[in-house]
Amino acid sequence: MTDQMTSEQAQADINDATINGIHMEKLQGTVHAIEQDPGLGQCKFRARNTWLGGNQNRTTITGFYAARQEIAHKQTFELHADEPPILAGSDEGANPVEHLLNALAACVTTSMVAHAAVRGIHIEELESELEGDIDLNGFLGLSEEVPKGFTNIRINFRVKADVDNMERLKRLTAYSPVFNTITRGAPVDIRVEAKQG
Amino acid sequence: MTDQMTSEQAQADINDATINGIHMEKLQGTVHAIEQDPGLGQCKFRARNTWLGGNQNRTTITGFYAARQEIAHKQTFELHADEPPILAGSDEGANPVEHLLNALAACVTTSMVAHAAVRGIHIEELESELEGDIDLNGFLGLSEEVPKGFTNIRINFRVKADVDNMERLKRLTAYSPVFNTITRGAPVDIRVEAKQG
Repeated sequence: MTDQMTSEQAQADINDATINGIHMEKLQGTVHAIEQDPGLGQCKFRARNTWLGGNQNRTTITGFYAARQEIAHKQTFELHADEPPILAGSDEGANPVEHLLNALAACVTTSMVAHAAVRGIHIEELESELEGDIDLNGFLGLSEEVPKGFTNIRINFRVKADVDNMERLKRLTAYSPVFNTITRGAPVDIRVEAKQG
Repeated sequence: MTDQMTSEQAQADINDATINGIHMEKLQGTVHAIEQDPGLGQCKFRARNTWLGGNQNRTTITGFYAARQEIAHKQTFELHADEPPILAGSDEGANPVEHLLNALAACVTTSMVAHAAVRGIHIEELESELEGDIDLNGFLGLSEEVPKGFTNIRINFRVKADVDNMERLKRLTAYSPVFNTITRGAPVDIRVEAKQG
């Protein structure tokens, strides 16, 4: 972000009552509504996936449940997965574990920015690099001792903000739902049924 | 998938020595190489993310480390995240927890299809629906008792394949790296440093 853009952002913040580009009135409206009526906080997020043959599949996301109602997204989101040639795919999309890193990066970023906004911490720029370790001996079933999932994930954030706030910003990452899902684990119930026709 | 497509797939399987659209010689080549030299199984997957302001950010995926070498993807993958208006965003992309459901759907699907192929189980069609529960009282910091991540995720698969194989196919989902990362958890190390300039 150039100095000019930063200055434009500052002006936009004043005009729209945003911090870090987030409309504070909207965000705080949601917070206050849930404070008054905690049941409003229950959400169900959803996805549909269709196998396209080989290692390719496509996820479609159309809506979710929040604030005691079904809510449609403004548009349908489609996400494509494949594997690289070395993993017997044709490299037409990020592979599933790369999609997981994307989910984690997006969530920790969004969580940090929103919680910083609520605390009045202005962020000018934010970027991150992620790396995660997987040993294919687990996935391929070659060793029972080797875990099948990521054994470690590292995220390095670089942030342009008041340098005294680095430790506070780091603590805010602990609010991220995807970070919590991955570090604490969550139960996943799977049903497999025959499709007729 | 229509009957004609299924028949075309069957013909393609014969021509290319594929099962479920996966090139078996390529897949088994990878398996045998790692069996001979388990160190080849070590992989590092990577992603870079840039905050775009507000609740929007973009992940870029360009390559990974496997088989003791850096490998570039054939193309750069970009993934976009945002939040819906009710969560103070502008709905320009799936939100981070929906991206997590996508990663899980993609991975369990790919794992089931590949492990079925190795076992000679032919799959004609496969689709799934996912739903996960999150209580925003956790993310918003309104309650210390409420978990911040998903508390439960459900996947319903519908599969067109020999009906006697449903239980076997269900068991194969346990090989999925993303499923294992989410159900068993993984450590995530976060660094936050000031960006100069």
